[in-house]
Amino acid sequence: MADDTWFTPLTPLAFLDRSARVFPDRTAIAYGDRRISYADFAAEATRLAHALRASGVKPGDRVAYLLPNIPEMLVAHFGVPLAEAVLVAVNTRLAGPEVRHICQHSGAKLLVVDAGLHPTIAPVAAELGIAIVTVTDPASGAAADPAVGGMSYEELLARGADTPLPWAVRDERDTISINYTSGTTGQPKGVMYHHRGAYLNSLAEIVHSQHTPESRYLWTLPMFHCNGWCTTWAVTAIGGTHVCLRSIDANEIWRLLDEEGITHLNGAPTVLVTIANAQPAHQLDREIIVTTAGAPPSPTVIGQLTELGARLVHVYGLTETYGPYTVCEVQDGWLKLDPQARNKMLARQGVGMVVTDGVRVVAPDLTDVPRDGATMGEVVMRGNNVMSGYFADPAATERAFAGGWFHSGDLGVWHPDGYIELRDRAKDIIVSGGENISTIEVEATIDSHPAVLEVAVVGVPHEKWGERPKAFVVLRSGATATAEEIAAHVRARIARFKVPDTIDFVAELPKTSTGKIQKFQLREREWKDRESRIQG
Amino acid sequence: MADDTWFTPLTPLAFLDRSARVFPDRTAIAYGDRRISYADFAAEATRLAHALRASGVKPGDRVAYLLPNIPEMLVAHFGVPLAEAVLVAVNTRLAGPEVRHICQHSGAKLLVVDAGLHPTIAPVAAELGIAIVTVTDPASGAAADPAVGGMSYEELLARGADTPLPWAVRDERDTISINYTSGTTGQPKGVMYHHRGAYLNSLAEIVHSQHTPESRYLWTLPMFHCNGWCTTWAVTAIGGTHVCLRSIDANEIWRLLDEEGITHLNGAPTVLVTIANAQPAHQLDREIIVTTAGAPPSPTVIGQLTELGARLVHVYGLTETYGPYTVCEVQDGWLKLDPQARNKMLARQGVGMVVTDGVRVVAPDLTDVPRDGATMGEVVMRGNNVMSGYFADPAATERAFAGGWFHSGDLGVWHPDGYIELRDRAKDIIVSGGENISTIEVEATIDSHPAVLEVAVVGVPHEKWGERPKAFVVLRSGATATAEEIAAHVRARIARFKVPDTIDFVAELPKTSTGKIQKFQLREREWKDRESRIQG
Repeated sequence: MADDTWFTPLTPLAFLDRSARVFPDRTAIAYGDRRISYADFAAEATRLAHALRASGVKPGDRVAYLLPNIPEMLVAHFGVPLAEAVLVAVNTRLAGPEVRHICQHSGAKLLVVDAGLHPTIAPVAAELGIAIVTVTDPASGAAADPAVGGMSYEELLARGADTPLPWAVRDERDTISINYTSGTTGQPKGVMYHHRGAYLNSLAEIVHSQHTPESRYLWTLPMFHCNGWCTTWAVTAIGGTHVCLRSIDANEIWRLLDEEGITHLNGAPTVLVTIANAQPAHQLDREIIVTTAGAPPSPTVIGQLTELGARLVHVYGLTETYGPYTVCEVQDGWLKLDPQARNKMLARQGVGMVVTDGVRVVAPDLTDVPRDGATMGEVVMRGNNVMSGYFADPAATERAFAGGWFHSGDLGVWHPDGYIELRDRAKDIIVSGGENISTIEVEATIDSHPAVLEVAVVGVPHEKWGERPKAFVVLRSGATATAEEIAAHVRARIARFKVPDTIDFVAELPKTSTGKIQKFQLREREWKDRESRIQG
Repeated sequence: MADDTWFTPLTPLAFLDRSARVFPDRTAIAYGDRRISYADFAAEATRLAHALRASGVKPGDRVAYLLPNIPEMLVAHFGVPLAEAVLVAVNTRLAGPEVRHICQHSGAKLLVVDAGLHPTIAPVAAELGIAIVTVTDPASGAAADPAVGGMSYEELLARGADTPLPWAVRDERDTISINYTSGTTGQPKGVMYHHRGAYLNSLAEIVHSQHTPESRYLWTLPMFHCNGWCTTWAVTAIGGTHVCLRSIDANEIWRLLDEEGITHLNGAPTVLVTIANAQPAHQLDREIIVTTAGAPPSPTVIGQLTELGARLVHVYGLTETYGPYTVCEVQDGWLKLDPQARNKMLARQGVGMVVTDGVRVVAPDLTDVPRDGATMGEVVMRGNNVMSGYFADPAATERAFAGGWFHSGDLGVWHPDGYIELRDRAKDIIVSGGENISTIEVEATIDSHPAVLEVAVVGVPHEKWGERPKAFVVLRSGATATAEEIAAHVRARIARFKVPDTIDFVAELPKTSTGKIQKFQLREREWKDRESRIQG
């Protein structure tokens, strides 16, 4: 390639190398009473890389991880690529057969699993046909299931060594990780990230979430989700402190906010709802930066968190875009708006982050839709922060990249100021009597009712209109409201045809591990009857 | 090349494209009463690019600029590469023959010059043989000299057009600018920057100087100096406001600090001395970030600025490293140190910035010197933020890159914590009786005397010892001190053999346009007599 005096391939490995040299004694990872310095972080990654090699992992091989947000998962984000291998961080909520599919599809040589997740893999362990390594986390209280077999993480590391390895990559477009999309339906696809994209997206996370070496980042976002939106690498790059969190527990989150001096956290809006409505919620004595994505945050939760002392950074992206791709940049004039109008601006998905090529909303022929805030189109992206493809799936890759743009499958509008706003997943939109109804719009309207904690709207079959919206509502603890009161609230705010015919009150909504509401479960239940009716 | 859906060449052009789309109405450039929005900034750059093409500038051609820190210079940083040309920003303090040399060596097709600098180029204008374009800045009061000829900037722009051009580059390793080193001796060499390095260094400036979209950056650093340490591109990337400054005037700087709400500025320590000791200097009502480099800042000026409300970010680099390459990262423990000890830590050049490969201090055989804070060696660097070479000078390029590392020519030590500290330019070190004396160390010691404003130490010939240190001291206004008092102050602090034999009091020190003290002028004066004596 080029003269390497003035060209070095970009890789997140360089971030840990630097922080271990610059901040060797600073706490890189805090987990309960454990404190891991940057020097130890790098040493553990080095030992892991050697151990993987000694276990037969060759350059380009995949290594699967099924761990919650514990230190070993952070170490994997550097140790696996340091062995020139590819990290496959698997969703911890998946069922055994799904984990088996991912291990087999990715051709992983090794699976590192938390003892607490043995119940998931025990039924399929024998069929995996790969080495299993078990991490036993004293904090979990879970013991390894002998039926799973394999070796302990300590036994794996014992195969390692401390000889330094180069924190470098030969080609920056080599794959660093494969993230299987936690698709709500269908077989998951393996999204490939390259070192260059991971490096650039990490810098963008630092820039837009305003991380500094003083950052104390709370891991409320799963690391298996887009490698924690590349924050596994970003917080390491800046020399901040990762504060690990095994599971989403509102009391524990508030304890850490107070006792660990948290400055930043990321999470889906449902996680933010949990935090804002927890019993120990209280005004913070400092501003923290909360970066949120995964679904449009409702103006209500934006308002709640602002009152507690958080500054919200609203981003949007997909597994295919290394996590966040857009950011809702705050314009000077917005601070002068009344809170409701401002929150409405902040709830939009925004504009491309600094390292992106920018985002478009397009008609099926890939021409721009008018920037009128009304015409719906598909959100498409391109550039260094778009996946290099689906692993071993050229057909799906070709479909996703049709016309030279990555197709998000998300529907949205383009506002006159260039900001995009999601209106729905293509499959979530409700078509009622030929009119499109955005479930997101209906949800935000219902959510603005003071008694409502959470809501999901789906289309249900209707003899005359084809589909009609139906709402599933979780009320705030202690609050009361009738379906008619909520319907009246909605009628006063949006077009009549968008008002749900039925409003069901439920105790909770089905969610993915990242906190996304699984509308397909609600929808399936409604349509199952319908289909049987048609067939019957 | 690669599939461009997931690979886009890195270029700072993308930064203005994005900010013009995201912040079209925000003030990009403030200069006196002029306010240029981001939309207009991009429009002007587009018009300039078309105008350059219409004037015969072809891809890869060089375009020379000789302007102070005015808006047209910022526009050039985007308009010239948008025309696929290479910007050659020339030091405004150079003499006519030097400007002529740079224009001829770079083969520039066009020279854009400020009317206020006509006295510089008038004597050589006829010999240049290239098109001259004159910018007349009403704020300067300078009128164009008819002898220079050529056309006005307005006439140039009239050749332009508003048709959008792609804010992109075919190969990220194409050259974006050539910066001629303002070498204190010898013919200047043309340092080539590529789009990739400029892009990455811009992101590093944002990260380490903690720029945000609210940044209001005061242009105390010349834009012709390493393209303003890439801050021309960085502040544009983040969507901050550039506050232009035609010349270093302490009263005007303080007026802008107050009236423009400046949040950031960069400058050599001598510029900081000017600011800190100006008549209107006063405590700021907010923290501003002052990024400094060019010479090690003395603990005294660090202390002064901290008291005024500035947070110092100390960086170090060379024209060959896109400006800053290292940063003195602040360690947790330093805040607990007493101010003097802390300032001493902060005066070190530090560690590689986040986008670099890291810095080394080496012996002549390129092996690391011991990290003992005492053994001197040469500072060497490599990676994406090292120039791609000297323009049309393969021999000098080869010398600079001997052994695969860029040789800075700076001598320093490596501390046990991995921080480097400069001790001298190779040519500034004093060898006295076989002992090396760091002029920087002697200068810092003299500078800690309360009566001293500025000091330079050079080696002067000595019959017995070969060389001995001699100090040139500028006293603070109203302060008094005798040479013996200062010598006693130094004797109490460093080894006797390092104490200057002679201390001269002078009204001012010779400086380069970027505020670096020109020791060679002091040295030449001393050695001229000596040489004539030897020869005589």
